[in-house]
Amino acid sequence: MKLDKKRFFVGILGFFMILGFVWAEEGMWLLNQLPGLKLAEKGFNIDVAKIYNPSAPSITDAIVLLGGGTAELVSEQGLLLTNHHVAFGAVQRVSTSGTDFISKGFLAETLRDEIEAPGYSASILMKMEDVTKAVLEGAGKIKDLVKRQKTIDQKIQKMTDGIEKGKSDISANIASMYEGKQYILFVFKRYDDVRVVYVPPAAIGNYGGEIDNWMWPRHTGDFSFMRIYMAPDGSGRKYHQDNVPLKPRYWLKVAGEGLKEGDQTFIMGYPGFTSRYRTSFAVDYSYRHQYPETIALYSDTINLLQSFEKDGLKAKMKVAGLIKGLSNGMKKSQGNVDGMGRTGFVEQKKAFERELMGFLQKDPALIKKYGHILGEIEQLYQKVIVTKAYEDALAGMGGRLCGTLMSIASQAYGVAAERAKPKSERDPRFSEKDIERTVSRLQYGYMSYYEPADKALLQAALRRAQDLPEDMRIKALESLLGGEGIDAFLDKAYEQSKLKDVEFARTLFGKSVQELKNQNDPFINLAAELYPEKEAQRKKDEAFAASISQLRKQYIDALYTWKGADMYPDANRTIRFSFGPVKGYAPRDAVVYKPFTTIKGAIEKRTAQEPFDLPQSVVDLWQARDFGRWACPTLQDVPIAFTHMVDSTGGNSGSPVLNANGELVGILFDGNYEAMTGDWQYDAEIQRSISVDIRYVMFITEKLGKATRILKEMKL
Amino acid sequence: MKLDKKRFFVGILGFFMILGFVWAEEGMWLLNQLPGLKLAEKGFNIDVAKIYNPSAPSITDAIVLLGGGTAELVSEQGLLLTNHHVAFGAVQRVSTSGTDFISKGFLAETLRDEIEAPGYSASILMKMEDVTKAVLEGAGKIKDLVKRQKTIDQKIQKMTDGIEKGKSDISANIASMYEGKQYILFVFKRYDDVRVVYVPPAAIGNYGGEIDNWMWPRHTGDFSFMRIYMAPDGSGRKYHQDNVPLKPRYWLKVAGEGLKEGDQTFIMGYPGFTSRYRTSFAVDYSYRHQYPETIALYSDTINLLQSFEKDGLKAKMKVAGLIKGLSNGMKKSQGNVDGMGRTGFVEQKKAFERELMGFLQKDPALIKKYGHILGEIEQLYQKVIVTKAYEDALAGMGGRLCGTLMSIASQAYGVAAERAKPKSERDPRFSEKDIERTVSRLQYGYMSYYEPADKALLQAALRRAQDLPEDMRIKALESLLGGEGIDAFLDKAYEQSKLKDVEFARTLFGKSVQELKNQNDPFINLAAELYPEKEAQRKKDEAFAASISQLRKQYIDALYTWKGADMYPDANRTIRFSFGPVKGYAPRDAVVYKPFTTIKGAIEKRTAQEPFDLPQSVVDLWQARDFGRWACPTLQDVPIAFTHMVDSTGGNSGSPVLNANGELVGILFDGNYEAMTGDWQYDAEIQRSISVDIRYVMFITEKLGKATRILKEMKL
Repeated sequence: MKLDKKRFFVGILGFFMILGFVWAEEGMWLLNQLPGLKLAEKGFNIDVAKIYNPSAPSITDAIVLLGGGTAELVSEQGLLLTNHHVAFGAVQRVSTSGTDFISKGFLAETLRDEIEAPGYSASILMKMEDVTKAVLEGAGKIKDLVKRQKTIDQKIQKMTDGIEKGKSDISANIASMYEGKQYILFVFKRYDDVRVVYVPPAAIGNYGGEIDNWMWPRHTGDFSFMRIYMAPDGSGRKYHQDNVPLKPRYWLKVAGEGLKEGDQTFIMGYPGFTSRYRTSFAVDYSYRHQYPETIALYSDTINLLQSFEKDGLKAKMKVAGLIKGLSNGMKKSQGNVDGMGRTGFVEQKKAFERELMGFLQKDPALIKKYGHILGEIEQLYQKVIVTKAYEDALAGMGGRLCGTLMSIASQAYGVAAERAKPKSERDPRFSEKDIERTVSRLQYGYMSYYEPADKALLQAALRRAQDLPEDMRIKALESLLGGEGIDAFLDKAYEQSKLKDVEFARTLFGKSVQELKNQNDPFINLAAELYPEKEAQRKKDEAFAASISQLRKQYIDALYTWKGADMYPDANRTIRFSFGPVKGYAPRDAVVYKPFTTIKGAIEKRTAQEPFDLPQSVVDLWQARDFGRWACPTLQDVPIAFTHMVDSTGGNSGSPVLNANGELVGILFDGNYEAMTGDWQYDAEIQRSISVDIRYVMFITEKLGKATRILKEMKL
Repeated sequence: MKLDKKRFFVGILGFFMILGFVWAEEGMWLLNQLPGLKLAEKGFNIDVAKIYNPSAPSITDAIVLLGGGTAELVSEQGLLLTNHHVAFGAVQRVSTSGTDFISKGFLAETLRDEIEAPGYSASILMKMEDVTKAVLEGAGKIKDLVKRQKTIDQKIQKMTDGIEKGKSDISANIASMYEGKQYILFVFKRYDDVRVVYVPPAAIGNYGGEIDNWMWPRHTGDFSFMRIYMAPDGSGRKYHQDNVPLKPRYWLKVAGEGLKEGDQTFIMGYPGFTSRYRTSFAVDYSYRHQYPETIALYSDTINLLQSFEKDGLKAKMKVAGLIKGLSNGMKKSQGNVDGMGRTGFVEQKKAFERELMGFLQKDPALIKKYGHILGEIEQLYQKVIVTKAYEDALAGMGGRLCGTLMSIASQAYGVAAERAKPKSERDPRFSEKDIERTVSRLQYGYMSYYEPADKALLQAALRRAQDLPEDMRIKALESLLGGEGIDAFLDKAYEQSKLKDVEFARTLFGKSVQELKNQNDPFINLAAELYPEKEAQRKKDEAFAASISQLRKQYIDALYTWKGADMYPDANRTIRFSFGPVKGYAPRDAVVYKPFTTIKGAIEKRTAQEPFDLPQSVVDLWQARDFGRWACPTLQDVPIAFTHMVDSTGGNSGSPVLNANGELVGILFDGNYEAMTGDWQYDAEIQRSISVDIRYVMFITEKLGKATRILKEMKL
């Protein structure tokens, strides 16, 4: 008898382990791949047609592309849930040193009190369609790869322009899947009036700060409520006092029953970028060059920016956003280096490629068709490495790391130069509509403009250029670096330039090259001098991209021939579906991480100092066991966050987590540090998504935020 | 049916939880308390008489007091097992920059090759006896507490002198238990010839170094083999070429079957000091004053010493021992501060004391007898705090943190001054035998003498004295600090002093006060100036000790009256027995630590750089699964270390871990960081001892060390 019971127990364990394996599904799937996933067999009770349905309301209609992340509709009045860190920029923009909503949080007591989230726009998918045939039509005949790609890009631009034409609230995007083997059109309705409804204090929404970022166990209530507004006629438009809350086609309902270990979940959202089908050469390049150099650059820049925090709260808030972004990027790079080193990732890829070659060599036709790919990719990367320092320094004379003023001068000059070209030579991605949007959003960049920091950023960028080896120097900088020197130039430029005025900056985007030169602005002059080298580099990049993309496409063909498995395209900021059960993991020898954290754990971490400054009232609520409806009966506490096996990456931030019935159980906000190489390769053992539990979201909203009108609106 | 099985399973869980609770036995028990522990009921198969037996060989005969730790006999030829860090000092002393046994490890190929461990002596318990009546005889009548204590101390000294008289290899120690409620005599046989047999490289024995110290999961093979030698007639004596290996009364056998989770274990050894019966005032004093100040002092001193590492390997090795000791002490203090803060320890103690007072207040006789204790202890601590800075600085002008030369001058002067007193006024603990031993061991202190570091230590000590507030200044230093200044004094002193010569230093311990003054040595002169203040402080300390000890004794009486439970005396470097099962723990929310680590985990941590420089050959053995007999079938790997519930503290280092049959399964080497407040209070939830698994010890000895003669000698 005893033995029987033991055997029964072993049986149960084995059963769960097998289920665990079956559930460990890799993939960020296109919505039209859903029927092939056989979700019913994997523990889902919900019909695929309730998830995505081109002809009737479905969960897809509640998924919103918001800023760099994802959000979801949770009421019939356009109420949005997303991450605290997705809403962070908006809260930062509306905060002044007088009303620091980041520290204190913000609650709009009524609809009228909801404040504009400047620069935010929300897009909802209206339609998706495979347009491969139309896009590639006639392109195959073109032998020159750069020309071929240009023809494709022009076709795409023409098609999307056609859709958007005359419709101010429609955006179209044709995305390349599998390195251009497939093209899919996504049409969105865009709402440019998004408002802030409830944001918990940073001590909840960013609890643990940079220290806990990417880490498990996590105790961050990383959520915010926003709302989409539309014109009374239902169209999307900018903030306007007559706008009304959106009436969505579909909105998500909070699950009646709490989530528990082993429960199946799925997410939908807009994951950024993955590189799951890359070769060892790409990995090696990133491991030995790209990541280490990014870490060094970001680390230096963070230190530089932090040195301005002592100038006061205003300065601190202005540099906060960039520091946060760089810290995140730096930790991600470091995690990749750590992970790749620990797992011998380059060698793993090489072994995989040796296997592939072994397979190909068995068939003379296959080896002829695909045998050349790896060698050619290797050669391309070898060339890239040689000139990387020059290219990085040149790219660094534009973008966010050279300061706002130089960056805008560089953009404006680029626009004018592009316009001056004959249409056939123009960059096919050049779009007057995009320029218009850039100009309309210029002011947000200026909101974090702090002159001493801006100047220091450009100084650092110029010094990096100065430190290049003799044979790599940026020619356009020679007269500046060799002549008056960096500091003299900077003093003069920041004193004289009219670019500090955002209204002046706006006008530049309407001017010709000659008109820009006539401004005799130090930043514009420098941008003009740099332009020919940047243009030459752009051409070089185009050629590299065309060559490598062609090889990667062939590589995917070879993999498909070999493995024949179902494949999903790399993430590329288009809407995807992922699924997997709630599950902890074993990060290292003798350590097991459980899948749920609790308020008790948040209190354990509490030091009462940022970033572990959990509000005293949460401690009081916990001590009084005043959990309302939101406690988990097993944990006897409110669950804060959980880990689950859904495959995700940056951009999925804010994605709704739904249970097997399609009910809302959480909001995804991070991946775990141990699996940062996940963008390169999925690892079921150790890769987890981290989500905030909807019970903590509602507990905080109700008990700390006292935002009863939100609960009422969500019918809770 | 299904429900039945579930209920059965819950039943099993409940059963184990209850057992877990029963097993969670607190206590470092005296050997004469063993029969009261009812070990048979707690899963032990071994008879108590096999553990401790005054009239026949027992496990106690295999337990050795070695240096600051514990060791155990494991062969009939006096082979000892202890920790790598217990043998560290010996290995350091025999290593020169030419033969760095710390990095490379050391194996004596034959008995002849075993090298002297300079300064080590091994003591084996011959007899223990309750001598309370003899010690306290007549003392109760003395009203003055200082005089009473002096009388007791003199009695103890007389009794132990009587036992040791004429026997060069016998040591006697009468230890006070429960603050002087009980006195126990321990008689030891001492062997001053201990040799090094096999020491694994530091990359095994100190794997993880300071980073992993006190941490779990741990992958340190913290063991060494040594051997006790005796004179051919069986007596203990110094190193001599005619000495032969010890023939022990008893030696431990390695367990035939490996340890697993839940198995019962026990340890025996010489735990240092605990304070389990102290009041909230003692805790508060340590939490707010003693620990933070220790952390600051040790941290500064470590930084100072590390600045000399760049002077070369020789300098690095000379400062290594002190750095190691200070780092350990600092981490322990930090762990106590963290633990006390996290658990609100002071408040816990206060709540406990409120309960005690509540109990006492119910009975007028009790409140009269014990009601005053807490108030009086509080007053004593309040006085201590006021003068602490002065006292610390004064104490800092002696001891290891003021440099070797000043420390020796201070000792030698103290000895001469004590000798000059009439016998009745002398410190009762003053012992010519101890002085003799100090002198004979002086050379070991000089082995880590590195003049620039020594000078810097004294400089720092003088600067701390200089920084005291005006009203706390050390008067004896005023002419030095106010006159020539610190640096001028140091330059002169280190140039002129003959103390740099160890032979000269030895002679000082035979000289009178006047003869010492005649040396006109700068260090001796300073020691002479400091002496009157130190003597005054000593008297003050004596008075404090006598008062607080009396109150603590009454406090223990009060606790006994209240709780009536079985009690064990605080650890005090006398032999103790502790037991508890192999068990992991949950260090924080959502994290579970399992009780065994493996070679796989050591490889995960490996960076190939110190302190994570696991030898490549261990990696190779693991990859080839060449584990010999030492793998655990469940883990499919060699277990490196494990956590178990035995109650231990510093001094238990090197203690044998024995299973329920009394067979050797491991060597204790650490406690976990989360439980560092364990010296103040036992916590079954989180306090664990960390031991190296005997299977890893033998695996390394056999496979890496190729020390087959050791295995043969141990009959393996």
